[in-house]
Order: sequence, then C-alpha cells, then structure tokens
Amino acid sequence: MSKTGTGGVHLHPATSADHPALWAMLEPVFRAGDTYAIDPAISREDALAWWCAGTHNAFVAQTGGQPMGSYYICPNQQGGGAHVANCGFVTAAAAQGRGVARQMLEHALETARARGYLAMQFNCVVSSNTRAVATWQANGFDIVGRLPGAFRHPVQGFIDAYVMYRTL
Amino acid sequence: MSKTGTGGVHLHPATSADHPALWAMLEPVFRAGDTYAIDPAISREDALAWWCAGTHNAFVAQTGGQPMGSYYICPNQQGGGAHVANCGFVTAAAAQGRGVARQMLEHALETARARGYLAMQFNCVVSSNTRAVATWQANGFDIVGRLPGAFRHPVQGFIDAYVMYRTL
Repeated sequence: MSKTGTGGVHLHPATSADHPALWAMLEPVFRAGDTYAIDPAISREDALAWWCAGTHNAFVAQTGGQPMGSYYICPNQQGGGAHVANCGFVTAAAAQGRGVARQMLEHALETARARGYLAMQFNCVVSSNTRAVATWQANGFDIVGRLPGAFRHPVQGFIDAYVMYRTL
Repeated sequence: MSKTGTGGVHLHPATSADHPALWAMLEPVFRAGDTYAIDPAISREDALAWWCAGTHNAFVAQTGGQPMGSYYICPNQQGGGAHVANCGFVTAAAAQGRGVARQMLEHALETARARGYLAMQFNCVVSSNTRAVATWQANGFDIVGRLPGAFRHPVQGFIDAYVMYRTL
C-alpha cells in the first residue's frame, strides 16, 4: 500500500532500508520518555523491533524523499479483541506542526479499514501530550477511559493517561 | 514468595512442573474464547509462554495439592507506565464459586505492592463476565473505561469491554 496524503506526504511500508531514518525519529522521542510508555534506555535494536516487527507493521511518511514521520499498526488484542487496531505515531522533530500526524492517521484509518478492523484504540495517551489528544479528538476519537496517575512523566511526575477509541 | 490465603489456598511461583496443570486450566478458557482476548486456537506452547514467560510471572493456587487456579503479573506498559501492574486470572472449572479468584487477587495485590507497583490495571474485562467484574469491583477496582464493541463474544457477538483500575 502506498499513497499520497492530502498534504503531499507519501507513505510506504517500512523496510530495513528505513531503519536509520526510523531510529533518527524514534530515538529522541523514546529517550525523552514523555509521550511513550517505553523504556527511555531502550536499545536501537529493541526499539526498531518493537516498532516494525512481530504483530506491528510500520509505515514511513516522506515528503521529497525526507522522512517526516512513521506509524505502526497492529491488532490491539488477540482472539475476540483482534478486530480492534492499535497504532503508534511519531513525527520527525523538523516536521512538527505541518499536519503530518493527521495525514498519517488518515492513512492508518484507511489501512485499518482495508485490513478489516472495525475500531481503533490507543491504550496510553499521555494527558500532557495535548497536541496528540487534540489531533485524535479532531479525527473521531473519544477519550473513553482515564487512567489516574498511570504515566510517570520525567518532569511533571505522575499524570493521567487516556484510553482513546473510535469505530471505523 | 509463597503464602496461604484466607481461604486455605496456597500459592507458589509456576515452574515447568506446573505446565500440565496450567494447560488443563487454560485450555478450556482460551478455547471457549468468551473471557480472554486470546486466539481460541492458540497452541499449548504459545499459551504457556504467554502465561508464564517474557515479562509475565505466573503463580499457581493449590488446595491439598490440587490446582485451583493461576494468575500472572507483569508491567502493563514500559517506561513511564511500568509502575502499573497487569494481571490475568484463571480458575479451574472444578473450583468455581469457592472464592479462589478473590484469594488469588489478594495475593496478586500483595505481590504487586512488594514489587513496587503503584496501581493495577485490567485492559480488556469482557462485560459479559459479570462474575469477574463483580469480584474486581468488590476489591477496589473501578471501571475507568468502556470500550464499545471491543470484544467479539462467540455467542453474544460484539459486546463492550471494560478497562478496570485501582491504586495500590
């Protein structure tokens, strides 16, 4: 699957050739530890395996050959929960504020529908990540759960995380 | 860690010697597909690995040498979410209605506190599993999220699942 989004961002399935660009985007986000519930000391190998391998399929967003962001899609649960997709998104630091996340989300929703998913769920949206929360809400996601103090923010300490969900 | 619960159930960390008893308890539950979001066709090997290995640590509950149930405990997320525990519970068919789940939960809460967890979260409690919901609510868990149609029940079709949470 490959398409050009409404903002000119082109998406392609990630391959090993994308690993340097993916790590360049993921490393600062994971090291910061303020948006993803991932060990900030995670190794490059483990981070790339988590993003791209197992049940996760990753896509890379580019504009003019430059990596702008990436997302993965996977089943959120097995068995009776396998019709609900889960995704994770990262935007390159230099590409913030250009609607890349929104365009990746559009691609993710289309991909999820094409794969037969009936809903999409984000399990741990950090409440201080207001940009992400606003983007997901503007695109049909509801906060269906509030997890009190479920995220230990490196600066703010224990803060809430949200479960966000939408049908497809 | 090993202790006798208030109802005379004894718990010990699962080893490979427990695998036959564990599979005897897990197989009917996973095959039924009505309480766990696990592939009903999961293999014995994969089921035991999921229950006991990786980040999951399993305990087995016995009375008079007979297996009554089991639970696992693990971090629900990594990094900023690693202070929240996740658990899964199974009660042997022959041991239903004797408070085994409640006694296992007491042990799990104690184990979680001893390991430094600050909260416990269940991600996908099937709404039709009223016995489990009632047991968790009676022991301090709140339904903090409702996932509409997130579980495909083999008889009832798409039904809601709950996110349940409590601090420790």
